[in-house]
Amino acid sequence: MSDQKAVGRPRSAEVDEKLKRAALKLVRERGYRDVSISALIAEAGVSRQSLYNRWHSKADLVLEALTDDTEGLVQLPDPARAGSAQAALRDFLHGIFRHLALDGTTLRSLIAAAQEDPAFREALRTRFVEPREEIVTALLARAQSAGELPAGRDIRMLSAFIHGAFWYRLLNGLPLDEDTARDIAAAIFAP
Amino acid sequence: MSDQKAVGRPRSAEVDEKLKRAALKLVRERGYRDVSISALIAEAGVSRQSLYNRWHSKADLVLEALTDDTEGLVQLPDPARAGSAQAALRDFLHGIFRHLALDGTTLRSLIAAAQEDPAFREALRTRFVEPREEIVTALLARAQSAGELPAGRDIRMLSAFIHGAFWYRLLNGLPLDEDTARDIAAAIFAP
Repeated sequence: MSDQKAVGRPRSAEVDEKLKRAALKLVRERGYRDVSISALIAEAGVSRQSLYNRWHSKADLVLEALTDDTEGLVQLPDPARAGSAQAALRDFLHGIFRHLALDGTTLRSLIAAAQEDPAFREALRTRFVEPREEIVTALLARAQSAGELPAGRDIRMLSAFIHGAFWYRLLNGLPLDEDTARDIAAAIFAP
Repeated sequence: MSDQKAVGRPRSAEVDEKLKRAALKLVRERGYRDVSISALIAEAGVSRQSLYNRWHSKADLVLEALTDDTEGLVQLPDPARAGSAQAALRDFLHGIFRHLALDGTTLRSLIAAAQEDPAFREALRTRFVEPREEIVTALLARAQSAGELPAGRDIRMLSAFIHGAFWYRLLNGLPLDEDTARDIAAAIFAP
């Protein structure tokens, strides 16, 4: 890598980072709806153009900020460590639900924004939703191979049940807590 | 009932009906977001006040119009007629999914509107969501009593799985069709 490239790249990456940090900070403080593009660029200390160079909209920026921030949660849990696939699913869900105390309202707003904007709906689904669904599907597939789930069970549909129950409770304003995580995992693995 | 009451009541009920019919017609034609209160009262041929006498907002009016219009779908299916509880669930879901070809976009918009308005979220949940959930829960409870579902299964959670999978696919822009109805019912009743 040449010196020039080493100097050039971090410059733009730094601006992106500033915008993503500003986005998370402001949506957490004020709520997604009440954060304007002007407030975002003022908080980040960058130009409006540098936001639009990289993202189409506020929704796009907030989606990337949230996706990056929850990267650590998107890891296949280890059933051996948790004790069983059921316990691993419970712990995985509980980790996500704990994080929703911070960003659940933002996620609700992004899902709402996606309903009025087909391009953003596609972005939300492919960049955020599907990678998370894949984690759970992989966990269930492994559990099925290990005989913890009957061979005939439809793993893809069970994964949709799990994420569906999570969205359904989130969007209806119902609590998502440790009990919910335990009950979802128990219902999936019920004999 | 006195004559006076018989004359007085239909007057206001007629105005309400006109507004609900106008609401369904316009949201189907233009999309929820692009229907204004002015357009609604013009289409119904009534005063702005008569709308606000009865409903808080466009969301409230559209919710009631949609709730009334789908009343016929909210009936406990008869497993004896369908052949089994699994077939009854499949037919019930397929009936709902068929109707979504007409009003799925409106339902998506109402769920989106609910995310930014706690009072409307509560209204959507108690008036629309929960009565539909109860139908499915009752079907599953009956299936459990009849031995078509193992005794240990968590009926309430299974009902949340079913509605959750439906919302999850709807809000992510994925198809909801006869195959989806069949696959959901099969996964719920899988041994």
